[in-house]
Amino acid sequence: MEPAAARLELLALSGVPLVRPGDDLAPIVLQALRLSGRSLEPGDVLVVAQKIVSKSEDRYVELAAVEPSPKAMELAEVTGKDPALLEVILRESRDVVRVRNDVLIVEHRLGFVLANAGVDASNVGEQGRVLLLPADPDASCRALREKLRGATGTDVGVVINDSWGRAWRLGTIGTALGVSGLPALVDLRGVPDLFGRALRSTEVAVADELAAAASLIMGQAGEGHPLVLARGFPYPGREGRGAHLLRPKSLDLFR
Amino acid sequence: MEPAAARLELLALSGVPLVRPGDDLAPIVLQALRLSGRSLEPGDVLVVAQKIVSKSEDRYVELAAVEPSPKAMELAEVTGKDPALLEVILRESRDVVRVRNDVLIVEHRLGFVLANAGVDASNVGEQGRVLLLPADPDASCRALREKLRGATGTDVGVVINDSWGRAWRLGTIGTALGVSGLPALVDLRGVPDLFGRALRSTEVAVADELAAAASLIMGQAGEGHPLVLARGFPYPGREGRGAHLLRPKSLDLFR
Repeated sequence: MEPAAARLELLALSGVPLVRPGDDLAPIVLQALRLSGRSLEPGDVLVVAQKIVSKSEDRYVELAAVEPSPKAMELAEVTGKDPALLEVILRESRDVVRVRNDVLIVEHRLGFVLANAGVDASNVGEQGRVLLLPADPDASCRALREKLRGATGTDVGVVINDSWGRAWRLGTIGTALGVSGLPALVDLRGVPDLFGRALRSTEVAVADELAAAASLIMGQAGEGHPLVLARGFPYPGREGRGAHLLRPKSLDLFR
Repeated sequence: MEPAAARLELLALSGVPLVRPGDDLAPIVLQALRLSGRSLEPGDVLVVAQKIVSKSEDRYVELAAVEPSPKAMELAEVTGKDPALLEVILRESRDVVRVRNDVLIVEHRLGFVLANAGVDASNVGEQGRVLLLPADPDASCRALREKLRGATGTDVGVVINDSWGRAWRLGTIGTALGVSGLPALVDLRGVPDLFGRALRSTEVAVADELAAAASLIMGQAGEGHPLVLARGFPYPGREGRGAHLLRPKSLDLFR
């Protein structure tokens, strides 16, 4: 039997205003849906750019108010980066994984391994502010999902994505920081393995794949179109968390 | 000015037969398009699962005919894998990057850093065959693109994808091995950086993002739906290669 043709549609919503600290994202999403002529359907997944979540949660830090530690001063010598910025990065990190020239790879306090702890200095502006990742991206997804369900009666999935680099490939790709209402990982098969193990398992990071797909049409770092509605995600109705995507240190060959 | 709503549609094509060595993929694609009620439009990108490209190129290796080298025998002791399989993996590799338990991370002869050199032993069957990556994925993409243009008059992009693991995250994601008729990397901005450099550049691995998006609806390792038609890819009409996505060793912090 030929399986039915699978179809996935991603729509970058129009009408998203500039998001300010304290803004509630739920009415912003609902307004953007209206302006885009869409409504939420069961099984839909909303992908939200990290930047607007961080802004709504007022994750700004004023660099002028940050006292660099000796460790930050030392890293400033090596990297040529601003010592206050480095102090902010260190406070967001559990561990510094690699330093070379102007690249700082850390283990973020939430377990992510990424450059500069995700601290965004690109729009620091005259105010001297940088923007941190959301405090708890999985919780941010759950909260937005609950509010959308309360307002519309429809249960959708929510993913927060950001653009991250990779160890052995150039360029960033959209990656899932937070997840609610969909699986983060799916085990696609368990077939006999002729090379020793009874079962071979293939886990697919479906939330990361969706985060990457949405990133394609978000534009400049999610600033063009920070909300993407995905319809046809093939694994609805299961529960996952962004934290499920973290490789445990015991399985890490590269630290 | 509000930018127009961006929309990306991915359709897994129906009617793809089992692909055998020597099969020409172009008529298979054209038949699947017909059976799916679609035709190619300029700017479309066709994403093709690595497995059917490798099969069409007869990239099978009979393990019984492979003589394991001393190095393969040594790795068999460490990993518990079949020595002939390890010999095949070594022949596909420039370098062994990491070995632990049953995990072997190598630099593939084409520069990819991945597990088991992409050698697929999952369907080894009674014939004792394994399947290698395509000999030159960028060339395979170019050839299929040319044939499709010859048959339809329409120039589309072609990506070959495969599901690969990552250093610090669990699960595989669709990744671009080969590219033709679209950019692999796009430089999304060059804004002044207040922290030392005149320009800050953000390169996005758009071919990898598209490969991940297509993987979502391909199903089990691309065997369910090995052909995905993407419409609305936002960077048509530029030329890239899968090789552009490889991080040069000089910029590699993790080997």
